[in-house]
Amino acid sequence: MHTIDELIQLALKEDIGPGDITTDNLVEPGTHGRGIIIAKEELIIAGLQVAEKVFSQLEPQIKFRAFYTDGDRVSVGSTVIRIEGMLSTLLKGERTALNFLQRLSGIATLTRAYVEEVAGKSVTLVDTRKTTPGWRVLEKYAVRKGGAHNHRMGLYDGVLIKDNHIAVAGGITSAVKRTRQAVSHLVKVEVEASTLKEVNEALSAGADIIMLDNMNIEQIRQAVSVIDKRALVEVSGGVTREKLKNLAQTGVDLISIGALTHSAVAVDLSMRIEPM
Amino acid sequence: MHTIDELIQLALKEDIGPGDITTDNLVEPGTHGRGIIIAKEELIIAGLQVAEKVFSQLEPQIKFRAFYTDGDRVSVGSTVIRIEGMLSTLLKGERTALNFLQRLSGIATLTRAYVEEVAGKSVTLVDTRKTTPGWRVLEKYAVRKGGAHNHRMGLYDGVLIKDNHIAVAGGITSAVKRTRQAVSHLVKVEVEASTLKEVNEALSAGADIIMLDNMNIEQIRQAVSVIDKRALVEVSGGVTREKLKNLAQTGVDLISIGALTHSAVAVDLSMRIEPM
Amino acid sequence: MHTIDELIQLALKEDIGPGDITTDNLVEPGTHGRGIIIAKEELIIAGLQVAEKVFSQLEPQIKFRAFYTDGDRVSVGSTVIRIEGMLSTLLKGERTALNFLQRLSGIATLTRAYVEEVAGKSVTLVDTRKTTPGWRVLEKYAVRKGGAHNHRMGLYDGVLIKDNHIAVAGGITSAVKRTRQAVSHLVKVEVEASTLKEVNEALSAGADIIMLDNMNIEQIRQAVSVIDKRALVEVSGGVTREKLKNLAQTGVDLISIGALTHSAVAVDLSMRIEPM
Amino acid sequence: MHTIDELIQLALKEDIGPGDITTDNLVEPGTHGRGIIIAKEELIIAGLQVAEKVFSQLEPQIKFRAFYTDGDRVSVGSTVIRIEGMLSTLLKGERTALNFLQRLSGIATLTRAYVEEVAGKSVTLVDTRKTTPGWRVLEKYAVRKGGAHNHRMGLYDGVLIKDNHIAVAGGITSAVKRTRQAVSHLVKVEVEASTLKEVNEALSAGADIIMLDNMNIEQIRQAVSVIDKRALVEVSGGVTREKLKNLAQTGVDLISIGALTHSAVAVDLSMRIEPM
Amino acid sequence: MHTIDELIQLALKEDIGPGDITTDNLVEPGTHGRGIIIAKEELIIAGLQVAEKVFSQLEPQIKFRAFYTDGDRVSVGSTVIRIEGMLSTLLKGERTALNFLQRLSGIATLTRAYVEEVAGKSVTLVDTRKTTPGWRVLEKYAVRKGGAHNHRMGLYDGVLIKDNHIAVAGGITSAVKRTRQAVSHLVKVEVEASTLKEVNEALSAGADIIMLDNMNIEQIRQAVSVIDKRALVEVSGGVTREKLKNLAQTGVDLISIGALTHSAVAVDLSMRIEPM
Amino acid sequence: MHTIDELIQLALKEDIGPGDITTDNLVEPGTHGRGIIIAKEELIIAGLQVAEKVFSQLEPQIKFRAFYTDGDRVSVGSTVIRIEGMLSTLLKGERTALNFLQRLSGIATLTRAYVEEVAGKSVTLVDTRKTTPGWRVLEKYAVRKGGAHNHRMGLYDGVLIKDNHIAVAGGITSAVKRTRQAVSHLVKVEVEASTLKEVNEALSAGADIIMLDNMNIEQIRQAVSVIDKRALVEVSGGVTREKLKNLAQTGVDLISIGALTHSAVAVDLSMRIEPM
Repeated sequence: MHTIDELIQLALKEDIGPGDITTDNLVEPGTHGRGIIIAKEELIIAGLQVAEKVFSQLEPQIKFRAFYTDGDRVSVGSTVIRIEGMLSTLLKGERTALNFLQRLSGIATLTRAYVEEVAGKSVTLVDTRKTTPGWRVLEKYAVRKGGAHNHRMGLYDGVLIKDNHIAVAGGITSAVKRTRQAVSHLVKVEVEASTLKEVNEALSAGADIIMLDNMNIEQIRQAVSVIDKRALVEVSGGVTREKLKNLAQTGVDLISIGALTHSAVAVDLSMRIEPM
Repeated sequence: MHTIDELIQLALKEDIGPGDITTDNLVEPGTHGRGIIIAKEELIIAGLQVAEKVFSQLEPQIKFRAFYTDGDRVSVGSTVIRIEGMLSTLLKGERTALNFLQRLSGIATLTRAYVEEVAGKSVTLVDTRKTTPGWRVLEKYAVRKGGAHNHRMGLYDGVLIKDNHIAVAGGITSAVKRTRQAVSHLVKVEVEASTLKEVNEALSAGADIIMLDNMNIEQIRQAVSVIDKRALVEVSGGVTREKLKNLAQTGVDLISIGALTHSAVAVDLSMRIEPM
Repeated sequence: MHTIDELIQLALKEDIGPGDITTDNLVEPGTHGRGIIIAKEELIIAGLQVAEKVFSQLEPQIKFRAFYTDGDRVSVGSTVIRIEGMLSTLLKGERTALNFLQRLSGIATLTRAYVEEVAGKSVTLVDTRKTTPGWRVLEKYAVRKGGAHNHRMGLYDGVLIKDNHIAVAGGITSAVKRTRQAVSHLVKVEVEASTLKEVNEALSAGADIIMLDNMNIEQIRQAVSVIDKRALVEVSGGVTREKLKNLAQTGVDLISIGALTHSAVAVDLSMRIEPM
Repeated sequence: MHTIDELIQLALKEDIGPGDITTDNLVEPGTHGRGIIIAKEELIIAGLQVAEKVFSQLEPQIKFRAFYTDGDRVSVGSTVIRIEGMLSTLLKGERTALNFLQRLSGIATLTRAYVEEVAGKSVTLVDTRKTTPGWRVLEKYAVRKGGAHNHRMGLYDGVLIKDNHIAVAGGITSAVKRTRQAVSHLVKVEVEASTLKEVNEALSAGADIIMLDNMNIEQIRQAVSVIDKRALVEVSGGVTREKLKNLAQTGVDLISIGALTHSAVAVDLSMRIEPM
Repeated sequence: MHTIDELIQLALKEDIGPGDITTDNLVEPGTHGRGIIIAKEELIIAGLQVAEKVFSQLEPQIKFRAFYTDGDRVSVGSTVIRIEGMLSTLLKGERTALNFLQRLSGIATLTRAYVEEVAGKSVTLVDTRKTTPGWRVLEKYAVRKGGAHNHRMGLYDGVLIKDNHIAVAGGITSAVKRTRQAVSHLVKVEVEASTLKEVNEALSAGADIIMLDNMNIEQIRQAVSVIDKRALVEVSGGVTREKLKNLAQTGVDLISIGALTHSAVAVDLSMRIEPM
Repeated sequence: MHTIDELIQLALKEDIGPGDITTDNLVEPGTHGRGIIIAKEELIIAGLQVAEKVFSQLEPQIKFRAFYTDGDRVSVGSTVIRIEGMLSTLLKGERTALNFLQRLSGIATLTRAYVEEVAGKSVTLVDTRKTTPGWRVLEKYAVRKGGAHNHRMGLYDGVLIKDNHIAVAGGITSAVKRTRQAVSHLVKVEVEASTLKEVNEALSAGADIIMLDNMNIEQIRQAVSVIDKRALVEVSGGVTREKLKNLAQTGVDLISIGALTHSAVAVDLSMRIEPM
């Protein structure tokens, strides 16, 4: 959780800076308070541990109690979290904690909606690398809590051979062979293909996964039939919630969706604070 | 620009980690390339310098040329940026640079739409602290490029007295007096008020700005009339694009809108890379 | 308090480095000790929490008890702090803790002397940005504990338009207008003026504060009378303790004094350590 | 120079934070400027490279020309430095660069005065660990430029056995023996002594240096005669400029003076900036 | 290469600290020098870029020329590198650069000897996570330059199910199923097996790779025959250079060898420096 | 211990990265476990506190009990450490903790063997700066636990004048004089000499220590006799375990041995983990 701690520290620094000039001058040191975080709309909660860390970075002894677990559905008006500690801690951490929770729950909530769209289908929805810079690990976590799966974490933990790589490597066959030889035997090799010819070449080269790039439904169906379980089939590019059901019925194994992270918006959560 | 450099470093680390195992094994060291970033929808561009920094952190000598300036409107299909350098740099920096550009331009584009809603009115639209943790300075910059203004940067550069502060300080009058005395004479004091009684108290206490919290149009109109230019008037809370025109006609000075940052989604930009 | 923690860490690193080769080789691990910090001259104490942090960074469980509160006057020979913990912690933290306390109390003590010079006058004494690099937040804190007030924290939380800015902006009027429009509505605009003509221009431009730069007493008096409460009046530049009373009688609102921080010297505090 | 770069970064961050809201809004990007740093009193200059680094961290290409070398005496009114670069860089770096230069030159100037007090004597003046936390390396550098020498850098590069160490080690003899055995053969062992008896014990134990702690002139004279060149003799504790000549005549080898760093104040330097 | 830069910085800090007190006091600033790094024994070179970074962190403009490429065999007495820059840079960077080169080349040299032992066999030699803390990426790079391959980089980029995981997951089948579902589809699943029964269970569960843990040659042969190409077979545990050939003849795909990193010693390289 | 904490953090980051994808998906949060670290060969243990820190960085509350003290001899099969905490902590920290322990104990074990070679002789064995970059403080600590002593920590805490320094300083006499004058009086001056002529020059110049560089036994004997206790005598260069006894009988004071750190290999320690 190290890089997450770094991000939380960055966030508290940018908000509090040299000091909260309202709270520091009005709240008597030693005053205790209680805070309640409430869902203002129905949502899938994600980020509870991050919210706790925000407050405990400010006050290690703080009492933080969550009434839900990440991935749970929370109905409007429900109390999600209760926090007890210094009143000044609550006032200083409030916005940062909410900003984390609202974005991560926003991603989990959006993801859940996509996932429900293909309920009962054998297809797996996965995210992409189109995440908020600095938030990769957190956003991919929220996607999992929403019920979808993760594609590779970054450029380091999976081979994905795209058109440019193919061009400079002198063809799909050579590209697959060269990477297979160079990387750990624990890593799979995925190849992007935009025509049936490329699909066939990737298959012969021994690709573990073939990503069908911007193909239409008919082409996808043909590709699935050609591949015939000899590699995993992934569909990628411009996937909307509307197209999802049709795509799922083509028999592909995986659908990757950038929107899960790049088009999620904050859900509405608020915090009520009172002195104790 | 220091904290921005830190965020960019974090972003490159989380994506590249110990190495881009596809590119490092396929692209011959020394191969040059060219990349073109293109708008796939109409948008207001923001974040050009950040995108440049992403690439120059990977390769200080890289040539980066932008055809627009932050805040410009870009039409579909237009080339926004041309980059020339190592092909491997382009492949490694592509996603991170796009992730920055797409989110920041998304904020600028959404903000511009809100701003145009009140074109010709004397009201000023401002953002809030509901920003992505770690991105405060960047997102507030994108808001300015979209045409709106910034509220305070954080808890350190403006006094904003809310109900909790008032409760523990023993009333508005005491709260204003105590903060005024404690903070630099360069900082203004803003007070949140949800009733006309509180508005009057804030006025007498000498607040520089009064924030009307969740009042309806009629209450706002009354408050504006009571305040009568003796303080700036800000409206806050649940402001939607639909309500904007009506709010603008009440005579308030400022409308603060969380949605500018917390509900902006990525705009569509893509990068075409080719060996040279 | 984040950047302060960073400075404390830097300080402990520069003093202890790879290890205290005297203590590490002579003090048996597990030996306890007690330390007493004593005032060797009359002083205003400041920095108690920093001193505590120095020791608790070395030994989180250490017992630290302060007999005074920052801002208190301490007489010669009084015990200010008692610390109990590992003897090695006391020996390693001693100099760093004292170095912090002696400088911060030195600033508080000097500031108090300036403040007493204008006791009963309505003028406010403020500090400047002439602080020890890396120590800004701490030194401005010590100034407050000495009884004076803070000018802006840095370049980011207050607009101060100086001659250079006026020159490149094409005049005071334009400079005030352009900054007012660009910055948050919570930030005030201050303008430096060295002639009555400039004072008038700043007034018309709507400056919130006018800083009279290096004017003599007579000019200051005239400026105060011209401004006539329409803006706050600040005097700045070469303010000595001798001139203070005369300046205070001119009716200015604020006097800024670089010497509070740039000419403060360490007060005398010492630590007596004994094994327990 | 690594930790110095860290301190400079800390300093620029604390001053500029999220941005210089005056300069960023008034100075057109691309405007060039020239800055001249002038001595407003006679002084010994120190810190020229640090000042250069402040500006070059903001703008790597900046032109910085110093007309003196650290340690030089500069007369009132002389131009010390000329800088050419972006006008905004000059305005943003001005205060931080001056704050560094003024404190370091203040130390060099004060040190030079002490050194001249004992001109022609064979005694060596040395500093102490009573430096500004975070500034150890810089302030010890300024002391050297003032003409005095450095005592140990920190707890890691020299053994200094004080009363507490002697107490827990069971006597001077055992303390010297144990440390000598434990540390590198390149490190000398110094023992603090406050009576002649202790001086003798330290001598027999084979101390390389004996520090006479708070002895009067007569006692010092006796100690020097007893030691008779078999160890270096250092005098420490409450050394003022007045006592210096008398101390120097006792025949001691070294006099350590905390005031060189803990009682130095800023010398007066100012910067004149103009657009180009 | 970010974490490598961090390690280099750490290394230079620990060696140079507040300054090289020999060189800084003897070498006139501005004196140029030339350094030649020579192999004092036959070796496989690795770490040339790291060595270059050591010097260029100290002096960005330094001229560094390598006469070999990482992975090349270098004979006794050959000049490997020539460096021209400030004499002080050469003296300060010498030991750190050599320390990096000697250890990394030591690993490459040892690895090459192992690889040659199985020349002509179809087996692949791989490293382990038994690397020097802080050096993971560098040491795995040296292993590749020695001619072997990498196992997973860390705990994050490959699933390796060991006995403890199996115990808490309630059996191999459940463990494979649960991890497969949770991780990215780009990541393979490896299972440790120490009996033929476990091998069979892992096979049925669909493991991609089966690691035979501390089996004897006969057991390995049986396992290979049972698995029959349905999964990759890895041998691990106590592999010595002597056993290597026999192991290679069992038909396993991979042999992992901790000794490549944990038992490599520095090869002999020295640097000759002269003023220019 | 600050830089050690930094190295441990680096090590955990490089191994765990964004998460342990095996453990995180198989071990139920809240499952406790016990780990036992066992010596698989006879060894001198070193690094117990570092191992503890690895686990306590992951889980501050963890129970860590060591049955030996650094420097103790441990026989095959003995339990060295018992740890109780979260099962997931044990699995995540295992390899990093072992990697630290195995290398540091490897150094202590090798050093002990060298030390026993000269048991009863009055000579002191010392290490060199040929340590693993980033590990200087740790490896020098392990050397001490093995029974040898430390040479200087780095370039900052001891003067060692080599041929290059002599060349640019214009001779040994000038080099000794100039450094003696510049450095703290607590630091000794060592000079490298490769002929008797240089030995004599170093003696006259007042060197505290003379390092005989690559001399044969006969030359060393002569040098010792010439120096005749007027300076410490150190032998350096290509010292092997075989030559050690002969060298010890020449009467030199110190023998420095790079192999203690650059040729130490990991000793065999393993960890047995079980759920509780």
